[in-house]
Amino acid sequence: MIQNIGIKLGELVRDFGGELIGDAEVVISGISTLSAAGPNEITFLTNSKYRSQLPSSRAAAVILAPQDQDATGIPRIVTRNPYAYMAKVSGLLHPLNRPSPGCHVSAVVDTTAQIAPDAVIGPHAVIAAHVVVGAGVVIGAGCLIGAGAEIGADTWLYPGVSIYAGCQLGRRGIYHSGVVIGADGFGLAPEDGRWLKIPQVGRVIIGDDVEIGANTTVDRGALEDTIIEDGVKLDNQIQIAHNVRIGAHTVIAACTGIAGSTVIGKHCIIGGAAMFVGHIHVTDGVTISGGSLVSKSIETPGTYTAMWAAAPHREWLKTVAQLRRLDSLTQRVRELEEKIQAIERKPA
Amino acid sequence: MIQNIGIKLGELVRDFGGELIGDAEVVISGISTLSAAGPNEITFLTNSKYRSQLPSSRAAAVILAPQDQDATGIPRIVTRNPYAYMAKVSGLLHPLNRPSPGCHVSAVVDTTAQIAPDAVIGPHAVIAAHVVVGAGVVIGAGCLIGAGAEIGADTWLYPGVSIYAGCQLGRRGIYHSGVVIGADGFGLAPEDGRWLKIPQVGRVIIGDDVEIGANTTVDRGALEDTIIEDGVKLDNQIQIAHNVRIGAHTVIAACTGIAGSTVIGKHCIIGGAAMFVGHIHVTDGVTISGGSLVSKSIETPGTYTAMWAAAPHREWLKTVAQLRRLDSLTQRVRELEEKIQAIERKPA
Amino acid sequence: MIQNIGIKLGELVRDFGGELIGDAEVVISGISTLSAAGPNEITFLTNSKYRSQLPSSRAAAVILAPQDQDATGIPRIVTRNPYAYMAKVSGLLHPLNRPSPGCHVSAVVDTTAQIAPDAVIGPHAVIAAHVVVGAGVVIGAGCLIGAGAEIGADTWLYPGVSIYAGCQLGRRGIYHSGVVIGADGFGLAPEDGRWLKIPQVGRVIIGDDVEIGANTTVDRGALEDTIIEDGVKLDNQIQIAHNVRIGAHTVIAACTGIAGSTVIGKHCIIGGAAMFVGHIHVTDGVTISGGSLVSKSIETPGTYTAMWAAAPHREWLKTVAQLRRLDSLTQRVRELEEKIQAIERKPA
Repeated sequence: MIQNIGIKLGELVRDFGGELIGDAEVVISGISTLSAAGPNEITFLTNSKYRSQLPSSRAAAVILAPQDQDATGIPRIVTRNPYAYMAKVSGLLHPLNRPSPGCHVSAVVDTTAQIAPDAVIGPHAVIAAHVVVGAGVVIGAGCLIGAGAEIGADTWLYPGVSIYAGCQLGRRGIYHSGVVIGADGFGLAPEDGRWLKIPQVGRVIIGDDVEIGANTTVDRGALEDTIIEDGVKLDNQIQIAHNVRIGAHTVIAACTGIAGSTVIGKHCIIGGAAMFVGHIHVTDGVTISGGSLVSKSIETPGTYTAMWAAAPHREWLKTVAQLRRLDSLTQRVRELEEKIQAIERKPA
Repeated sequence: MIQNIGIKLGELVRDFGGELIGDAEVVISGISTLSAAGPNEITFLTNSKYRSQLPSSRAAAVILAPQDQDATGIPRIVTRNPYAYMAKVSGLLHPLNRPSPGCHVSAVVDTTAQIAPDAVIGPHAVIAAHVVVGAGVVIGAGCLIGAGAEIGADTWLYPGVSIYAGCQLGRRGIYHSGVVIGADGFGLAPEDGRWLKIPQVGRVIIGDDVEIGANTTVDRGALEDTIIEDGVKLDNQIQIAHNVRIGAHTVIAACTGIAGSTVIGKHCIIGGAAMFVGHIHVTDGVTISGGSLVSKSIETPGTYTAMWAAAPHREWLKTVAQLRRLDSLTQRVRELEEKIQAIERKPA
Repeated sequence: MIQNIGIKLGELVRDFGGELIGDAEVVISGISTLSAAGPNEITFLTNSKYRSQLPSSRAAAVILAPQDQDATGIPRIVTRNPYAYMAKVSGLLHPLNRPSPGCHVSAVVDTTAQIAPDAVIGPHAVIAAHVVVGAGVVIGAGCLIGAGAEIGADTWLYPGVSIYAGCQLGRRGIYHSGVVIGADGFGLAPEDGRWLKIPQVGRVIIGDDVEIGANTTVDRGALEDTIIEDGVKLDNQIQIAHNVRIGAHTVIAACTGIAGSTVIGKHCIIGGAAMFVGHIHVTDGVTISGGSLVSKSIETPGTYTAMWAAAPHREWLKTVAQLRRLDSLTQRVRELEEKIQAIERKPA
């Protein structure tokens, strides 16, 4: 309904704080970018470098930071964190469309499963024995929940999520389609040229307020558990191997892989397509640049990088060839040094 | 039936063009490689370097380019583009095995969905409210289609595809198992050491003649849409982030990731495992080598690369060590320059 | 039941060999790490460097190698391969919880499919025409098996696996959720600025004792088959393109991609996030370091690497800048050489 009737700027600052400059009675019914916002929408300026776009915006109001508050005359909400403010306003304007409670008739729910009365179980979902589904949970169509798994209150599984037996998901989580939680870790012991499977009998334990993107996989532990702490956000197509631990409020961008038993600290920011070898420790507050490979433990907060940027093909080949010739260049410098020494030693 | 009764070479050139040298009445019932083709099959030579294999082929006929037309005496179809010709012949010999129209009794189809009479809805598919399924569409077993999504005419969804609410797929598309279209983009605003979710309310809009490989994910836009233009071909396990735009007829090989808001031009060729940072622009006609990271906009067509090739381990370690010592090598060269200057300055 | 009643050390050595030092009547009911093992559990020492942790372990017994057999006084099983021994003991203690045979009432099984009487077909699985399911097979909930596919005896498909038409899976395989076997390879022929699809009419043929991790994809061949030989173990999120062949007993860690027609030998070990270009050959017994790109054939066994390790960001930028200046450094060395020559030529 909020989408239909709109919301007043005065109501926004009452709920979310910030200083309103302009008419509190202005009603907005949507949020959009500087260039796309229409006359019934609020927009936002999260970076002063886009300030010049503000005068041409058709928006009814704008969320901005104190240093930009004089850049426009339209009604504006001034806040030190316009991006977070925008997130809250957008959340208010776009409430999740929650299905009605109950199990769809086509879902297969084991009689021993405990399903909260207000939970939603979508069509063709399969809920195995002894699963516990908390209050307010939404399990989308075609989700497959293994025996004894537990889904914390208000967690939302989009269609087509697979949770293996015994895994525990916290509260208020969001799991996107194609996520697989709790598949076997890659544990193999070589014997006589073959590989013996090491049973993976740990679980995956996931904290509260975790979001996991489409087709991301988190493997169960070999003997102990794989752990994702509270507030972690994982993008799409990430691979978390067995016995990894991800610290609270760490965010990881898409296509990243973390090998077995590696421990990532809290409040880390991991760029896309980063790769971590196994059995290392990364302390709290570390940033890893996208595409970088982390091959040993990092005990000092800061930003770490190993990233080559694409260059025109011939230029790149030249750079590679030069690196390959470094050996001979070093040799030539050594010879020069010897000759200079000989010259210097010679009596004038 | 074509597979059973075979097709005459004369019919092929009538339908697909090219010049036939040899007997138009020769019948072929299959297509195969130079080495594997049997006496009822047609083969193809797409690269002159394999020309020497032609005499030993048992094939009944061959598709080849003008420069190779004298390399054999068997019936041959001469065309400037043997690879495209081969694609057409193979398509004729291997027509898709389309299931009979209708909804399988186990599918769950919302009463408000509009399903074309000749569409196919497979077993255990779930079609939510207000979905529009066009003429000739095939929706495979277990596909999960969210509310209001639209599937254009003659598009084929293999089993186990997930389409989120509101997304639009063009005509004649092919979507493979595990594809997820329209999951939330990775939009987060930091506040007090936590991450607030930014609702992802844009859609994914996909053009006509698009093919998307197994387990590839395309995220919905944050506020505006993510767009895949006509004729784009995406391989498996690709990640397309929110608000990306991929230009028409661009092909992207497997395991590539494209971060948010990046725009890729038309007719680009992106190698496998390439990675693109967000918010950049790549112009039309660019080729990116496999495994390369693109970290800034590219405004000039051409090939771009950042790729180190695996070398024997000790050799690689030596190269890395030399690069690490470049600093001291540079210093040694500087000292040599100073000494030479001193020598040169000295009166003879 | 074994889990409840426990097993005697004497029974372990009777079944699996090794030399027992200590009381054969000691009963263990679980297996755990050195630090986590309780007084009813057996632990293991697979690397002498953790030997110092042994005295503080509360375990009832330990599996270890001859060189470590005097490091403790508790009952111990001495074996040359403690890791493989541990795998066997753990397998005994954690037998798979096999569901009762039969097709779940919600599964959709084509009448022409041949299902072994003791096979298990889970809820909402879909088994198409002419599928053959061998003895002892377990097909998990929501698996989607295409027409004519064959699943060898005792193979286990976890929930949500997709097998395309005509593919063949060997015996005793393990396939995790989200695996897609047999989607179309990425075969396209350019014509007039567009891409024509080349029908992918080969199959995927998978040997015995193969395990494939969550969300891994193996594409069907273009004309001939894609082949995974016996005993191959693939981790999660791996992409195997069309017409690849993986030799027997090769293991591949997560996030690796192998482009089309590449042949990997037997007994190779491929690290995570490795990438292989297409149409190359890697001989038997090759190890590829994680994150390395293999761009040409490898005909000599050994370890191959191309991997840059993340460094503090400023340090990395400096290294990159130096490499970019190599051209001018080389030029400076050349000039020095000329000057030295001139000096040396000068009569003293």
